Amino acid sequence: MHTRISSHSQEVIIGPDQPVVIIGERINPTGRRKLAAALEAGDMALLKEDARRQVEAGARILDVNVGISGADEAALMRQALAAVREVTDVPLCIDSADPKVLAAGLEVYEGKALVNSVNGEEAKLKEVLPVVAQYGAAVVALTMDDRGIPNDVDTRLAIADKILNEAARLGIATEDVIIDPLAMSVAADDQAGLTALTALARIRDRLGVNQTIGASNISYGLPERRAVNCVFLAMAVMNGLTCPITDPTIWEIRRTLLLADLFLGRDEFAMNYISAYREQFPEDD
Amino acid sequence: MHTRISSHSQEVIIGPDQPVVIIGERINPTGRRKLAAALEAGDMALLKEDARRQVEAGARILDVNVGISGADEAALMRQALAAVREVTDVPLCIDSADPKVLAAGLEVYEGKALVNSVNGEEAKLKEVLPVVAQYGAAVVALTMDDRGIPNDVDTRLAIADKILNEAARLGIATEDVIIDPLAMSVAADDQAGLTALTALARIRDRLGVNQTIGASNISYGLPERRAVNCVFLAMAVMNGLTCPITDPTIWEIRRTLLLADLFLGRDEFAMNYISAYREQFPEDD
Repeated sequence: MHTRISSHSQEVIIGPDQPVVIIGERINPTGRRKLAAALEAGDMALLKEDARRQVEAGARILDVNVGISGADEAALMRQALAAVREVTDVPLCIDSADPKVLAAGLEVYEGKALVNSVNGEEAKLKEVLPVVAQYGAAVVALTMDDRGIPNDVDTRLAIADKILNEAARLGIATEDVIIDPLAMSVAADDQAGLTALTALARIRDRLGVNQTIGASNISYGLPERRAVNCVFLAMAVMNGLTCPITDPTIWEIRRTLLLADLFLGRDEFAMNYISAYREQFPEDD
Repeated sequence: MHTRISSHSQEVIIGPDQPVVIIGERINPTGRRKLAAALEAGDMALLKEDARRQVEAGARILDVNVGISGADEAALMRQALAAVREVTDVPLCIDSADPKVLAAGLEVYEGKALVNSVNGEEAKLKEVLPVVAQYGAAVVALTMDDRGIPNDVDTRLAIADKILNEAARLGIATEDVIIDPLAMSVAADDQAGLTALTALARIRDRLGVNQTIGASNISYGLPERRAVNCVFLAMAVMNGLTCPITDPTIWEIRRTLLLADLFLGRDEFAMNYISAYREQFPEDD
């Protein structure tokens, strides 16, 4: 199944027969004080730098989140989308907890955006999906609902099913829903990795949809978090992860995803891996 | 399915519900001049050091290969097995291209050894399997035959089937055959990773046997070989690799396998990973 996301001038195809599509996660003020301060002051320089660097490092889509408490997030989102477009033509993922901000962003966005995110909560379904349908966007759907994040695979699958049904009812195509089966900390629950990996495989086999995951939760509380995230990403790609939300400016992450593609037969003559390596370490040539 | 390998005092259980069993690969003179020279001179100090270090780094079984051209390999194998036993009680994998050397080793070995290896070649089946049966050992079986290493998964599966049938005819239990579906260089063939990963999954699903793999071929000709091997190992464990032959003294390799266990729910409270990390980096405590 192919999900097509586009900007005014580029289209990205996400699918199991395609190389992994990295959705760059860096444009997000959560835990990034400098970016938060810059956004608050209306200074888009750092955001533009993040956009440019991620695309250079192989991001095919950029997530844009400008959630800062107290700010006019809708206005800031429009400003941020315009700023990103000044430096890159890649399609964008409009990311906010507030459906009004999503609508404000979609209204000015040229192309078919990805929206981050909906989940199985009744309020979210009611508020986010109609906006996605209205603007003909695609959407990330987290497998949690009003009862929280289920510990078991069956309930996550049932929530994915429910969101897909509700999306279909509103005219959103199945291929335009990207499921996030949620990776939680293995330090807090030693079965959390198995749950996420099993959910990925079962959602792929049963529903055939594209899947994203934020891999960084998985390593919370463990040493060598970057390595932990990389091993998880490799296993997750094996099981059906097609478009992780992650930071490609971290070479180990980018390398892991390029190698996963190579091992799945999606990198002719290993050219993508080798050329990325040469960009990263030009002095070795 | 459980494969049990033992020494005079220890038993190791290999199975999909068990943590990955590392078979330490370092005791092998191929490409290791210093070890080759020491073995040739009858000096077992370096071999003992390799044995000790690998067990400290988490190897649960040690492969012992003493193939040097010109040497009396059978005598050297007996000497090596005795030397290893002086420093560790872990079960051993007796590794030689010569069936007479395998027999010489098995004759003096106390416990149930692993034998490395048989394959689908008529001569190998005829010469190696009877020795394995005679001594009640287990055996690694490579999915290649007189026609070479097949490029396709179906033929590898057919060779695995053929070896299992021939083993059964001689009274060797299915669980005592560990299949190696062979990972070849992805730089030479960009579909080699997919072939190996698909073979692992299909052999697991169809035959249910334990599987080993030598991961280092996969990276031949590529930059950052260690990282390449690690990503492949993570994906291979996801698909049914239960007892890789590798070098656990390389922390990145050991860490990858520990994390793969953690993500498959086989490491209670992440204790194996955390305690290995603390051994590796005691200064961080």
